[in-house]
Amino acid sequence: MKSIKELLREKKDGAVWTTDEMSGFVEGMVTNKVTPPQIAAFLMAACIRGLSSDETAALTMAMTKSGAHFSKDGSSRPRIDKHSTGGVGDKVSLLLAPLAVACGLSVPMISGRGLGHTGGTLDKLESTIGFRTDLSFAQMQDLLKDHHVFMAGQSEELVPADRITYALRDVTGTVENVGLITASILSKKMAEGLDGLVMDMKVGRGAFMRSFDDARRLAESMLEVCKNVGLPVTFVFSRMDKPLGKTIGNWLEVAEAEIALATTAQKDLAELTIELVARMLTLAKTCSTMTDAKSAVVEAWRSGAAHVVFHEMVARQGGRWNESVEHYADFVPSEIVAMSKGYITAVDAHALAIATMEAGAGRLDERDVIDPIAGIVLLHPPGTEIAIGEPVALAYASDDSRREALASRVSNVIQIGTAPVEQEPSMIIDVWE
Amino acid sequence: MKSIKELLREKKDGAVWTTDEMSGFVEGMVTNKVTPPQIAAFLMAACIRGLSSDETAALTMAMTKSGAHFSKDGSSRPRIDKHSTGGVGDKVSLLLAPLAVACGLSVPMISGRGLGHTGGTLDKLESTIGFRTDLSFAQMQDLLKDHHVFMAGQSEELVPADRITYALRDVTGTVENVGLITASILSKKMAEGLDGLVMDMKVGRGAFMRSFDDARRLAESMLEVCKNVGLPVTFVFSRMDKPLGKTIGNWLEVAEAEIALATTAQKDLAELTIELVARMLTLAKTCSTMTDAKSAVVEAWRSGAAHVVFHEMVARQGGRWNESVEHYADFVPSEIVAMSKGYITAVDAHALAIATMEAGAGRLDERDVIDPIAGIVLLHPPGTEIAIGEPVALAYASDDSRREALASRVSNVIQIGTAPVEQEPSMIIDVWE
Repeated sequence: MKSIKELLREKKDGAVWTTDEMSGFVEGMVTNKVTPPQIAAFLMAACIRGLSSDETAALTMAMTKSGAHFSKDGSSRPRIDKHSTGGVGDKVSLLLAPLAVACGLSVPMISGRGLGHTGGTLDKLESTIGFRTDLSFAQMQDLLKDHHVFMAGQSEELVPADRITYALRDVTGTVENVGLITASILSKKMAEGLDGLVMDMKVGRGAFMRSFDDARRLAESMLEVCKNVGLPVTFVFSRMDKPLGKTIGNWLEVAEAEIALATTAQKDLAELTIELVARMLTLAKTCSTMTDAKSAVVEAWRSGAAHVVFHEMVARQGGRWNESVEHYADFVPSEIVAMSKGYITAVDAHALAIATMEAGAGRLDERDVIDPIAGIVLLHPPGTEIAIGEPVALAYASDDSRREALASRVSNVIQIGTAPVEQEPSMIIDVWE
Repeated sequence: MKSIKELLREKKDGAVWTTDEMSGFVEGMVTNKVTPPQIAAFLMAACIRGLSSDETAALTMAMTKSGAHFSKDGSSRPRIDKHSTGGVGDKVSLLLAPLAVACGLSVPMISGRGLGHTGGTLDKLESTIGFRTDLSFAQMQDLLKDHHVFMAGQSEELVPADRITYALRDVTGTVENVGLITASILSKKMAEGLDGLVMDMKVGRGAFMRSFDDARRLAESMLEVCKNVGLPVTFVFSRMDKPLGKTIGNWLEVAEAEIALATTAQKDLAELTIELVARMLTLAKTCSTMTDAKSAVVEAWRSGAAHVVFHEMVARQGGRWNESVEHYADFVPSEIVAMSKGYITAVDAHALAIATMEAGAGRLDERDVIDPIAGIVLLHPPGTEIAIGEPVALAYASDDSRREALASRVSNVIQIGTAPVEQEPSMIIDVWE
């Protein structure tokens, strides 16, 4: 057996590690046989030399095995999850999980926090007063068995090797690497004991990956590993140039999702959500065609079944919905009005995300505390005709000066042109089944 | 100012750091603003992407400045040191420092310990009972001022950034990199406040660098940095295929050096020692030609002046010479005899070094305790005619079974052929002034 320093020396020189070498290294991370500097050296070498597809699969499997994983619980429901690569105003999970459960799936949803300009589902959920995301592994397993759904953060027991490497990737500038990203995403999903995974690959100015090529490269890497470990997967490539739906900000997005489930969603949000849930249903073989699957989703939405699932889930995890609605109703927004008449042409998702984060909705640093009300409501989708002085957006923040600053930045980002924009393109760019 | 993780991300992608960026990073190591995983990530990136000559110079200077350094002490003596890249049986420093001091130089010698197959001067010195190498910075400065010489280990105060990186390079497989080696060697030498440095670049089977190309690459890197920081330097490339002199092992090498200073040394050891001291004298401009310089060295040797300096230095640093000689005289060696008649042809330095280290003379691991008597005496240089049954070597170890194992391995390494070998080549391969 080679020593850790020999393995690192070889990786430095471009060697490809065997499956056993990769497992031994990852096991060592958790048992403290491999130290943080050695992990950091590996991460840097992996970024520069690259990881082969076999190495990525071995890393994924070893990380999955580094902690607890969800057992099959005897439920006849197919267990399917969705993962998004991250985008601005992405509240899809909040609608998708209730819809999928209402359609007969089991959805163990382990989510992350926001860092940088893309928000995190955990931060959104926690804006609901009382909502607990810090569930133990046993609590998650019980909720999944009895109610087919939970939404929680990664507990101590789950994929500890990923928690260790994730923290080190952040401080050593080794975040952007296809192999490491693949292993980080898929190890967590593998630990959920899934029957299938739908990946929402976001592309554009508001996304983690700006170009379709980057997204495709990550999808190819993930597809190889999914084949290797036998996890059925569908990739949906979706547009992320403007924010998804009407809102950006933690509470505002949760409220938008709840209202959407009770009534209807803005077109872009509805289209993407229905596509993703329908893909989950066909992947699970619950429906045999996308047409059938979409009908099932629309029915679960229209009937209010998903809305009921949403409120049951919130209540089970400690969330006090009515109290939250009353609490946030006290905050008065700043109104942004049109300075000229015309048509709303462009809404830059990235610029809005940065402004919203700086107003308190996100973290510049891990230790930053989030302001749950901070955020923006976009009152009209692009293409809408607007009169001078008509309100176009609302800016929220619990701190007055931050709210004013946010309002003035939003005012600069929303562009009004003299001609109507073309028909909005579909949210879906491509699908790999 | 860029954050540490931004700097690392750029280095990952092949960026060249500015002098300010490199100094900031190294300063951060000492003030704990840069963490060990971040240093490890830097070391790996430096190994794979390489360091430019400017980066290497900046790293060297920043490491030098990370701790205390020796001031000019008003002495009129030129301050010159020698550094060897490491070889088997390399006791040159033990002869060279006394000779150089006897010739009018000041020699602040900060040495290292052995790790792997090449021995360390500190371990050799400490085999003398009572000899202290763990001098404080103030003690070193006083010895240098009053007596023009000390031989000690790197104290806490000196070049802390090198101690930090050296330990991390060992565990992360990032030892072999020309830029990092250059900075490690030269930062320590710069902190000595030298007027000049002679580098003994060893090449061959017993050396850290096996090929002349590797040695030349390191010398080129060092030469660039020395020019950059204004340190006069001479490179002597010397042969290291067989052990230097008669002995390998800590006490055995100290004893060989002492006897050599009192009388004469084996031809290879004498040739290299005289060359190196003479280069120190010409570099210091104490002598204007190598012929004059060599005459001065030979006179300091022949007159016994260097022998006196040796004993004064040992006594000043607490060494009890006579007690040591008596103590080690009690150990009885195993004799290795010729199994056939003929001529001693080959003595593989690397094989002997490994056997001697495993008998207790060196460390496989940092925590290993050294057996100071463990070692080998080679009774005849290669080329000597030998009768069957005639003793060719002695093996020492305080543990009987280790001594027997060593003797049998030595017996296999010393080869006896039927024809005399050609004239031994000169120790000196090349010199760069």
